[in-house]
Amino acid sequence: MNTIPVKAYGTDAPEHDLKQFQIDRRAVLEQDVEIDILYCGVCHSDLHFARNDWGMTQYPVVPGHEIVGRVTSIGSGVTKHKIGDIVAVGCLVDSCRTCNNCQNDWEQYCHSWVGTYGGFDKHLNTNTHGGYSEKIVVDEHFVLSVPDNLDKAGLAPVLCAGITTWSPLRYWNVNKDSKVAVVGLGGLGHMAIKLAHALGAHVTLFSRSTNKISDAKALGADEVIISTDDAQMEAAMGRFDLILDTVPYEHDFNPYINTLNTNGTLVILGYLGPLDPPLVSVGMIMGRRTVAGSLIGGIAETQELIDFCGKHNITSDIEVIKMQEINEAYERMLKSDVKYRFVIDMKSLKER
Amino acid sequence: MNTIPVKAYGTDAPEHDLKQFQIDRRAVLEQDVEIDILYCGVCHSDLHFARNDWGMTQYPVVPGHEIVGRVTSIGSGVTKHKIGDIVAVGCLVDSCRTCNNCQNDWEQYCHSWVGTYGGFDKHLNTNTHGGYSEKIVVDEHFVLSVPDNLDKAGLAPVLCAGITTWSPLRYWNVNKDSKVAVVGLGGLGHMAIKLAHALGAHVTLFSRSTNKISDAKALGADEVIISTDDAQMEAAMGRFDLILDTVPYEHDFNPYINTLNTNGTLVILGYLGPLDPPLVSVGMIMGRRTVAGSLIGGIAETQELIDFCGKHNITSDIEVIKMQEINEAYERMLKSDVKYRFVIDMKSLKER
Repeated sequence: MNTIPVKAYGTDAPEHDLKQFQIDRRAVLEQDVEIDILYCGVCHSDLHFARNDWGMTQYPVVPGHEIVGRVTSIGSGVTKHKIGDIVAVGCLVDSCRTCNNCQNDWEQYCHSWVGTYGGFDKHLNTNTHGGYSEKIVVDEHFVLSVPDNLDKAGLAPVLCAGITTWSPLRYWNVNKDSKVAVVGLGGLGHMAIKLAHALGAHVTLFSRSTNKISDAKALGADEVIISTDDAQMEAAMGRFDLILDTVPYEHDFNPYINTLNTNGTLVILGYLGPLDPPLVSVGMIMGRRTVAGSLIGGIAETQELIDFCGKHNITSDIEVIKMQEINEAYERMLKSDVKYRFVIDMKSLKER
Repeated sequence: MNTIPVKAYGTDAPEHDLKQFQIDRRAVLEQDVEIDILYCGVCHSDLHFARNDWGMTQYPVVPGHEIVGRVTSIGSGVTKHKIGDIVAVGCLVDSCRTCNNCQNDWEQYCHSWVGTYGGFDKHLNTNTHGGYSEKIVVDEHFVLSVPDNLDKAGLAPVLCAGITTWSPLRYWNVNKDSKVAVVGLGGLGHMAIKLAHALGAHVTLFSRSTNKISDAKALGADEVIISTDDAQMEAAMGRFDLILDTVPYEHDFNPYINTLNTNGTLVILGYLGPLDPPLVSVGMIMGRRTVAGSLIGGIAETQELIDFCGKHNITSDIEVIKMQEINEAYERMLKSDVKYRFVIDMKSLKER
C-alpha cells in the first residue's frame, strides 16, 4: 500500500540512545485522519519500552502516546474531524470494535487493542510507531477533539497521565462527598490531584517527605500525609473512599489499605513488578476493602476528560524540550527530576 | 449483677482438649433474649480460637457462633421475639449501634463489634462465651427469627458459613445473569454453591482434583474446573464476574484473577496468612479486576439470608455430633473429613 515517509526519533536496540531516522506512515485510508504532530508528552512507559524493560519491545521503536496536533488530511469517510482541527491521540489507535469491552466503550480492555506504538498496524503489516515523529495517521474513532482554550503542549500529558487517573475517578464515582488520596506526586499523581480536586473531592497526598507539601497544595490537595510517619498513618486509618496508587515500581501498598474506609478501594495504576509485593488480606477482610487495577481509559471517556479539562481549564504542569534533548530527559525522568512531565515541541524535529 | 450458671464446653489452654465446665451468663436485661441452645455448628474459627492460632485468645474459651435455639425468657423491652420462638444467633452479639457502619447495617465492620465468643461482655465485665453451651443471653437486635420449615440443625451453619458467602453475593449484586466461581468445597464453599445457584447465577467450582465433581454438581454447580489443569485454566480466562475464594489458608490466588471478566472481583473470605501471598497486579490492571475482602455479614443481611433459605428450603449439609465428640471432630475437620459441617446436638450436653 501507499506510504508517507516521516521523520521520527527512536531506537533500534535497548542499549542505544534515541536518534533520528525515517519511518513510513500508511497513506490515508477512508476512515483515517492524518495529523501534523505539534507536541508529544514523554511517559515513563516510553522509556521502559525503548529499553525493553518489559521484554516485549520489537525494534525499531518510536515511542510517544501523548499526542496533540493539527489535521492535515482526512479520508473520504471521515465525519468527526476536518482539515485544520486541533486534535489529540492517546495510547490506543485501534481495537476490534466488536467485543463486549469495545461495545461498552472500554477499548483499553479489548484483547485486540493496538497501542499507539509497539502495537501491530494491520494495514502496513508492521509495528505501530508513536508520537516522536512529524506526522501520524490514525482511524478517526481514536482521534479526540480538543477545545480551543487549552494550552496544546500542556494538554499532551492528559492523553495518558490524565486519562489513567480520570478513568478510576469516574469508575469509582468520585464526587464532592468523596475522600480521595493519591500515592506519589509524579506525572500521574499531579494530574490525579488536579482532577479529583476539580470533581469536588477532598484530596490528600501520601508522600514520603515533607518537601512536597507546598507543591501538592498548590495543585489542589487539601492535605499531605507523610507516609513514613507512623502517627500520621495511624491517624489516617479508615478515612478514604478511593486511593490512587501511582507509584510505578515495587513498593508495599499494604499500609495504605488500612487507611481505606469500609468498602473503600485502592487502585494500582503502575506496574509493581517484577517482584510482586505481598497482599496482607486481614485489613481487606475487616472492612470489605478492595484492591483494583486500572488501565488508561476508553475513547469516549478520554473525550469526556478533554472536555472536562476545557471546562475547568486544566492541563498538565510541564517542561517543554526539543526532540534532540530526549535522551537527557529520560535520565532526568529516572531521577524524578521534572515537574511534572516533559513535552516535546515537535517543531524541533521538523526544522532539522 | 445477677448471673445464670450454665454448662458449657471449652478449654483453658491451647494445648488442652475441650472439656465440660460451668460458665455464668448474665441474667436477662431489658433488651435481652435468653435462648435454650438446640444446635451449634462447628466453624474452623472455633478450632483456631481454641488453639490460639491467631494469638489473641483469652482463656477459658467457649467456642461456637452458629447457634439455633428456643427462647425461654425475654426482657421487659423485647419486641422482636417471644417465649417459645425458634431463633438463631451468629457471630455478633453486640456493636456500638451509632457509627456509620452500624447505621448502614454493617455491624460486622463496626470497630466495637462484640464477637459471640472471645469478645467482651460489658455487662458481666468478662469475655463472651459461645454456643457450645446450654443457654445464651443476647440483645434482641442480634437475635434472628427462623422460619418454621427449616431443619434446625442444618440451619446452624447458615449463621456463619452461609452469611460469609451470602454477603458478597449480595454486595456484588449476583443475579441470573452472573457467572460466579467458588474456590474450595468446604463449609463455606458448599454454601456458596447452593446460594449462588438459588440466586440464578451460573456457578463453577474450582477444585484441585476430579473427585469433587459429582458432589459439586449435586449441590448446584453447573461446572467444575480442575485448577491444576493448565488447559482448563487457560480456557477459563476472562469468564467470571465474581469469584468467592473460601480457602482458609495460604495459597496462590493469582491464577484465579485472570479468570475474571473485565470489572470482575475475587473476594477473599478466609485468612491467607501468616505468610501473605504475593499479588500479581498486571492481570488486575489489564482488566480493571479487583481483589476484595469480606467478613461475615450484618444483622439485617443475615435475616434476609435466613428468610431466603426458608423460601428456597436451603440448609447446610451436615454431620450431627454429640458435644463429647468435639475433639475428634476438630481432628477430622483439619483433614477436611466432613461433608460439610459438623453440628453439635446440644441435648448431649444437657443430659449429662
